[in-house]
Amino acid sequence: MRPRSLVSAALCLLPLRADEGMWTFDNVPVKRIKESYGFEPTQAWLDHLRLASVRFPGASGSFVSKDGLVLTNHHVGRGAIQQASTAKIDYVKDGFIAKSRAEEIKIPGMELITLVELKNITADVNAAVKSGMTDQTARKSREQRIQELQKAEQDRSDLKVDPVTLYQGGEYWLYIYERHTDVRLVAAPEAQVAFFGGDWDNFTFPRHNLDFTLFRVYKNDQPYQPKHFLQWGNAPLKAKDLVFVTGHPGATSRQETYAQMLFARDEAIPYRIQSWERQRDALRKYGETSPEAKRLVDDQIFGIENNLKRFRGFLTGLNNQVAMAKILKAEETLKAVDPKGSASWSRIAQAVQVEKAMLRERSFVDARNSQLLNFALTLTRLGSEVSKPSEQRLNEFSDANLKATKAALIRPRPFDVGVEIAQFTAGLEEAKLELGLQHPFVKILLGDRSPREVAESAVKGSKLGDLAERKRLLEGDAALISANNDPMLLLARKLDPLNRAVRKRFEDEVQSVYAEHGGRIAAARFKAYGKSQYPDATFTLRLSYGTVSAYPANGTLMQPFTTFAGLYDRAWAWGPEAENGSWALPSRWLDKRSAIDLSTPFNFAYACDTIGGNSGSPVVNAQGELVGLNFDGNIEGLVGRYYYDGNVKRSVGVDARAITEALEKVYEAPHLVKELRGK
Amino acid sequence: MRPRSLVSAALCLLPLRADEGMWTFDNVPVKRIKESYGFEPTQAWLDHLRLASVRFPGASGSFVSKDGLVLTNHHVGRGAIQQASTAKIDYVKDGFIAKSRAEEIKIPGMELITLVELKNITADVNAAVKSGMTDQTARKSREQRIQELQKAEQDRSDLKVDPVTLYQGGEYWLYIYERHTDVRLVAAPEAQVAFFGGDWDNFTFPRHNLDFTLFRVYKNDQPYQPKHFLQWGNAPLKAKDLVFVTGHPGATSRQETYAQMLFARDEAIPYRIQSWERQRDALRKYGETSPEAKRLVDDQIFGIENNLKRFRGFLTGLNNQVAMAKILKAEETLKAVDPKGSASWSRIAQAVQVEKAMLRERSFVDARNSQLLNFALTLTRLGSEVSKPSEQRLNEFSDANLKATKAALIRPRPFDVGVEIAQFTAGLEEAKLELGLQHPFVKILLGDRSPREVAESAVKGSKLGDLAERKRLLEGDAALISANNDPMLLLARKLDPLNRAVRKRFEDEVQSVYAEHGGRIAAARFKAYGKSQYPDATFTLRLSYGTVSAYPANGTLMQPFTTFAGLYDRAWAWGPEAENGSWALPSRWLDKRSAIDLSTPFNFAYACDTIGGNSGSPVVNAQGELVGLNFDGNIEGLVGRYYYDGNVKRSVGVDARAITEALEKVYEAPHLVKELRGK
Repeated sequence: MRPRSLVSAALCLLPLRADEGMWTFDNVPVKRIKESYGFEPTQAWLDHLRLASVRFPGASGSFVSKDGLVLTNHHVGRGAIQQASTAKIDYVKDGFIAKSRAEEIKIPGMELITLVELKNITADVNAAVKSGMTDQTARKSREQRIQELQKAEQDRSDLKVDPVTLYQGGEYWLYIYERHTDVRLVAAPEAQVAFFGGDWDNFTFPRHNLDFTLFRVYKNDQPYQPKHFLQWGNAPLKAKDLVFVTGHPGATSRQETYAQMLFARDEAIPYRIQSWERQRDALRKYGETSPEAKRLVDDQIFGIENNLKRFRGFLTGLNNQVAMAKILKAEETLKAVDPKGSASWSRIAQAVQVEKAMLRERSFVDARNSQLLNFALTLTRLGSEVSKPSEQRLNEFSDANLKATKAALIRPRPFDVGVEIAQFTAGLEEAKLELGLQHPFVKILLGDRSPREVAESAVKGSKLGDLAERKRLLEGDAALISANNDPMLLLARKLDPLNRAVRKRFEDEVQSVYAEHGGRIAAARFKAYGKSQYPDATFTLRLSYGTVSAYPANGTLMQPFTTFAGLYDRAWAWGPEAENGSWALPSRWLDKRSAIDLSTPFNFAYACDTIGGNSGSPVVNAQGELVGLNFDGNIEGLVGRYYYDGNVKRSVGVDARAITEALEKVYEAPHLVKELRGK
Repeated sequence: MRPRSLVSAALCLLPLRADEGMWTFDNVPVKRIKESYGFEPTQAWLDHLRLASVRFPGASGSFVSKDGLVLTNHHVGRGAIQQASTAKIDYVKDGFIAKSRAEEIKIPGMELITLVELKNITADVNAAVKSGMTDQTARKSREQRIQELQKAEQDRSDLKVDPVTLYQGGEYWLYIYERHTDVRLVAAPEAQVAFFGGDWDNFTFPRHNLDFTLFRVYKNDQPYQPKHFLQWGNAPLKAKDLVFVTGHPGATSRQETYAQMLFARDEAIPYRIQSWERQRDALRKYGETSPEAKRLVDDQIFGIENNLKRFRGFLTGLNNQVAMAKILKAEETLKAVDPKGSASWSRIAQAVQVEKAMLRERSFVDARNSQLLNFALTLTRLGSEVSKPSEQRLNEFSDANLKATKAALIRPRPFDVGVEIAQFTAGLEEAKLELGLQHPFVKILLGDRSPREVAESAVKGSKLGDLAERKRLLEGDAALISANNDPMLLLARKLDPLNRAVRKRFEDEVQSVYAEHGGRIAAARFKAYGKSQYPDATFTLRLSYGTVSAYPANGTLMQPFTTFAGLYDRAWAWGPEAENGSWALPSRWLDKRSAIDLSTPFNFAYACDTIGGNSGSPVVNAQGELVGLNFDGNIEGLVGRYYYDGNVKRSVGVDARAITEALEKVYEAPHLVKELRGK
């Protein structure tokens, strides 16, 4: 007899934790929370938390003072801090503290929103689908009905109305938001301490990032007085304390079918990783040409490495056979409950085959990492798209998205001809390699020319790198664009029909099936389990809960908190030069060290279920007080894209005490500490 | 086409590092070191290092002052520190600092040795083997010749002479040592800071263990003045600096055959782990009976957990398919070089089958974790064994080992009836379960009685827990023992022949084959590669080299150093209560904190190739100065039992600066700092 395999035995021991879930506010599992922790959130408690929560573009935040201070992450506010900087003063590098309200810097174009109402429109949307409709027609009918309902709601107020699909099509909602458009920068630490450890420490713990920024919302040029804001935590947070996170987790795929997950594991993710690696290598190569080139590409390489780390984390999860077996088993259990509905899984599995067959075209028939070609494609499509009814347009041109699409076109952003040529060349080379010489994209865009020739002449000949030129074209009429022979616009006109065809086929043959049958599977799940499940993340407001807690890693237990002493430990241990200064501290931090209480908690880890988009989320205790600021998760938690493993998945936050300690001792801003403490 | 598998691609990138090897002092790869690092150790440099190195029982150390101070780990000196303690003063808990030489505490029975000469006796030993001899006879002839040579050498001086087999039988040596028998305790920190992080942090990094003890060797009641001692490091040690480690790595299995490794992976190690888990569970269960019981078993459970961590680390290595494929390939390459010799691999593979068939009996026909039955077995065998010629005795009774065997019998050690019953019961239950009711061991030792009945009556009825009784029997004649009907002696008389038979079969059918054919494979290897290889570790003096260096783990880079700030970070982060106070600091350390320069390096990681037995090894720089004190390795390095992976295997040491900083600022012992600095 051979002893049982130790590895798989250990994995079997992972119990499902009580802390799983990114819950919508209409369906918070208050009983489950009470059973686990003896605390039952009331409706008033939940409403308060929801209304104090703020959505940033792509991220989260919260009101934290009666005078409208908003707390989020430095990496969320970074664009705004950059915008506030001048040629002479780099607030990203040096940090910024407004010594008075007069010094607070307005960020034009910045908009924050708070979720004031949720309307369930599921029945109404489902009623738009008649029996006998194809998946494609059903999806279109639903979309049309959703747009009608959205528009009707929109017409009633100046609130922002977003349609929301939950449970893969199991529910449809309108989420209604209040807008805050006068947002001013109040305080931000140096990027070096906000992002201490840089790319290396990203997605890891123990961590030492003072990753916060304070903004203030104004109304009529006066500090806004929100009805709901979070009190600053009074009771010291300890290990095992129950905490809650509100925020906007971006996307998870936990309710996808097993077939979809296998496709992600075996095809989509490895393919994406390979593509990013190529892009990174091309940038690196360009970076070797000069120190200035290196400086220019470093930020982009960082972004790619970040994605690589994330996607490799996903793969680790999808390669965990024990976890995957559980997912398969859950699916089979559900199928057995509803044998009739099991056709939906087959239909999705068939659509996965189509997605697989289209993987190359979907990956490469696009603007090939060229910023300018992306601009050109948007400009090219603008005229013809806006002339159609909203529901017939490409998604980014629908009434709901048009404004953002136009804004993106004229947002100031770094542009460098050399980097652009390098990226576009590599992108075209990849398409040529992967699609083959006979593919229309390759034939039409390249013709007889090499990727480098095409990229170089188009980039050098284009004026679209100039923001004023893009603005001019955007503000002109459709004819102005169609008559323009900017080489990027010429390329865009070739690309447009090719890319449209791929998108259309994907929508009709894949997305429609996922939407229709995802909804049917959700219905089966509701039938079996009621609303004891939470929907996949959709960048809508959610509540997560869990305890501050250590977890096993690296052969030992990871400490639940880090302290300021740990920050200095890493800075001293590495020295200022190692790994491009990844663990260097700003000089102010070295000067002020003796003023700091080094035992003050700095970052902490907690078992709340979060994911990208939760950046800037408030972490509150059972009293609803702000005790931390979510900014990341550990590397073990990356598998949370596909399933939750409470044994090792941890969210990572800045301890609220670190913020006040730093504001007081390092940044000499007692007025902000006083305001945060509500005194 | 599917993209290449990312996981295996990443593993393929592991290059073989230049830093591999535990080199004997007759065969230091000076050219290789020079080529890698531009530093060429001279013979004088090597001799100095060798003669300043000290062997402790099971561990390593070094002379570090002109007046005979010896530096080793706290966990190496722990037994001595315990011995020096009294009923009133617990130096293990409270630490010990001799304020003057008069206060230094002599440790009776403690012996340190230094390697003064190495004699190669390979040709002479091999000449004892005549062609046509069986493997068994060949091994016996060799053993006899080795014992003769050892005795002849021994008779020439009072130096200690140890026979050493290297390269699995490729070389035979006599290692000749000077003895140091008057050893006194000088300084030891509190166990809590020496073993900070406890079992959790064991085998991990980043680490914060002040794991040192200072002893002093005396001759004629005067401090010994060694000709060779290590100067305390002057130049500050930095990341990427080249360092060397001397010491006594205990055992590796890197030159075992692939078949032997597979057996370890699939049979021996999982079996051992299962057995330890059972033993641990039995102790835990007993520990639940009272707080006192818990206190008693905690130390033993720790020891088992430690072994479990190690063996699981071995398994991780053996389950790495890329690494194992490399090992197999190297073996096949070597076979191809010497096709005639490839029979030896087959012979070993056959012997592995015998070992496999014997695994149960070898695992369970023994004293079943009973300390008392082990004592009894030794006493029972003593008379008959010593009456035989040395080379015919069981190994532990040979002239070379007899003294240590007797000493072990009367070494004071904790003994508790309850713990002993619990362990022995569990051990007997396991044997019953695994061997089956019909096995002679089970029939003869248990008869009709249950494991608990046998264990309880034997333990309660035995006087062997009493050191005085064991001493009385040891010092008496053989008849005194054979006439004694202590229940443990009765059991031992039953166990003796059963255990002997298993041992004999294993020696004849397995070990003889491994010895003979291991030697032949070594010869093939020498023929192919000369002496560019190092032998497996054998607890003999070795030299390793490598750089202070970070390594990837936990999603980021592990810092090469930790600092005192990191020590306080962990202590504060966990608080004094968490995990039974694993990260609690002694009160003296809390009181003296503000006196300490928190940026002082504490522990550090370096790519030297070490393993258990290297505890207490000095870490020296190219100037031969002591810069650190080896005490552990990281968890990634545990696979070093089977192969070296320089990308992630790191040794872990106490930075020399941490020792002087603590002696000066925390322990107020400037006299010791002065002596160490040679001022």
